[in-house]
Amino acid sequence: MIHFRPIILLFLVIVLFACAEQMVQKSDPLLSWNDGKNKQSIMDFVNEITNETSPNYVKPADRIATFDNDGTLWSEQPYYFQLQFALDRVKVMSADHPEWKDIPLFKAVLDNDINKVLSFGEHGLLELVMATHAGMTTEEFSQIVRDWIITAKHPMTKRLYKEMVYQPMLELLDYLRANGFKTFIVSGGGIDFMRPWTEEVYAIPAEQVIGSSGKVKFEMKDGQPVLTKLPEINFIDDKEGKPVGIYQSIGKRPIAAFGNSDGDLQMLQWTAAGNGKRLMVYIHHTDAEREWAYDRESHIGRLNKGLDEAVKKGWVIVDMKNDWNKIYPELVR
Amino acid sequence: MIHFRPIILLFLVIVLFACAEQMVQKSDPLLSWNDGKNKQSIMDFVNEITNETSPNYVKPADRIATFDNDGTLWSEQPYYFQLQFALDRVKVMSADHPEWKDIPLFKAVLDNDINKVLSFGEHGLLELVMATHAGMTTEEFSQIVRDWIITAKHPMTKRLYKEMVYQPMLELLDYLRANGFKTFIVSGGGIDFMRPWTEEVYAIPAEQVIGSSGKVKFEMKDGQPVLTKLPEINFIDDKEGKPVGIYQSIGKRPIAAFGNSDGDLQMLQWTAAGNGKRLMVYIHHTDAEREWAYDRESHIGRLNKGLDEAVKKGWVIVDMKNDWNKIYPELVR
Repeated sequence: MIHFRPIILLFLVIVLFACAEQMVQKSDPLLSWNDGKNKQSIMDFVNEITNETSPNYVKPADRIATFDNDGTLWSEQPYYFQLQFALDRVKVMSADHPEWKDIPLFKAVLDNDINKVLSFGEHGLLELVMATHAGMTTEEFSQIVRDWIITAKHPMTKRLYKEMVYQPMLELLDYLRANGFKTFIVSGGGIDFMRPWTEEVYAIPAEQVIGSSGKVKFEMKDGQPVLTKLPEINFIDDKEGKPVGIYQSIGKRPIAAFGNSDGDLQMLQWTAAGNGKRLMVYIHHTDAEREWAYDRESHIGRLNKGLDEAVKKGWVIVDMKNDWNKIYPELVR
Repeated sequence: MIHFRPIILLFLVIVLFACAEQMVQKSDPLLSWNDGKNKQSIMDFVNEITNETSPNYVKPADRIATFDNDGTLWSEQPYYFQLQFALDRVKVMSADHPEWKDIPLFKAVLDNDINKVLSFGEHGLLELVMATHAGMTTEEFSQIVRDWIITAKHPMTKRLYKEMVYQPMLELLDYLRANGFKTFIVSGGGIDFMRPWTEEVYAIPAEQVIGSSGKVKFEMKDGQPVLTKLPEINFIDDKEGKPVGIYQSIGKRPIAAFGNSDGDLQMLQWTAAGNGKRLMVYIHHTDAEREWAYDRESHIGRLNKGLDEAVKKGWVIVDMKNDWNKIYPELVR
């Protein structure tokens, strides 16, 4: 019966591979997180809702996790990266807009006077977004974003903006997906600005990205149907808008939600108010050396009311400085 | 070496199961579709875009297929099933609305005078929807829909409405998903009316349902955050609205789209205008015996301009009478 041996060998190899795979799965899925109560709370939650014998078991279809983007999945200082994109666009587009040099807001952009730009407040930012994010087809805009995201670098870290994503959060996204979660972005940022790169950077496909948006119009252009971006607000996905956006786009209440500012508070409240076990997490920016340290007084990503409520309700408050042993991914050039 | 035999046996069993599975996969996935050029066109398309050696290969992340609901996945005659839901709600709610018996539109509903109701046109239908689909939390409304869908029966077929889905389309949905497609509903019907039952009936989860919607408001009620449905239109997902809704919710252009009326034309045009191979399908209601026969003159699901364009462009026009050997699923009571 010597001729059976190759089959037996094959069988042993299969068993060996299965064991090796199990061992890999048992290694730490959150390597960049230091051991401690926050990491433990996250893993305890996942273990419990995936345990079929637990009263808190959640079937895979309802394992919805929502993530804010700016300040939660990537950095947001000294100002939102999408604003830098808008500033860069103003400069590129200014050749076709000689009138801009006489308009104070646009003149400030062209003069690189960022403090002056910020002094125009939210209204000014919106005006810059309208001027740079509309008046073209959706496909033209996507291409502009794709070209920018592979070249634009942060002035302080000299990293590409897309390399300023948090390594611990990438691991967390993977870990949740490995446990049957569907991961969504729910950001105040522009949906059109995020979708061209979220699949590559976060493994979150376009259809799982919720954000602020402008109106688009279906029309015929040279006999071809196109969607044209209009300079009109469609939806602002911030504060009270976040649970509304989640409801309109997903139609299910998340069981886990992650944010870093008061703009995420309503999303966390709405998540918390569901039945069964829930996970609410705030990322607290406490690391002035490796990233930035800011909360109650910051003009970007202010965390004030949210911090009080998180403490009161016992939500997880991630201390970036102490909970994360790595901030950004290592660069392989 | 007799002691190896159980292992060998186990191995043979594994091989046998693998073969059996392959055989099942090779059996006809579209059993309720008669052989012919339409069935062949659909299968040729799927074979080509999943063939990695084809220039028309599409990677799984971009295999987006969108389906209209009324008249495409389930019947819509003699009037939209959601209208029946609204009529039923008016009757239930009338106890709290004594004033309705003096309002002609509502009086017609209470008198069961459907022709009179329809004579109020689109504006009347919208008024009924506003009166019955708002003024409660989103969770209360979902529960009302769930209770209705498991009990309400069509007056002519005596089937539950949810049993009036098309068996050939259920097979098509399964077939596409087995080939890596993500299937979406893109309906003029209400998103809140569909989501409570699409997972069970079509295996399409809530987050893959796009439809018309009302506005919702985040607010605190007895200390708990809730979303309250307002009697205001948020979005009409019909005609030009369909590509807009797809863009806002999915952010990708479908490679296959299925409809049955002029309301689906822009979705099919926008699908057709993408690069590479595309599949555009109209379901043509030609079977007056087993279902209904209607197209250019129908007050519900009119197919006029769309039919002309489908003929001109060579899109697939499914002839329900001749292409489908079964309309509804067999009932197992």
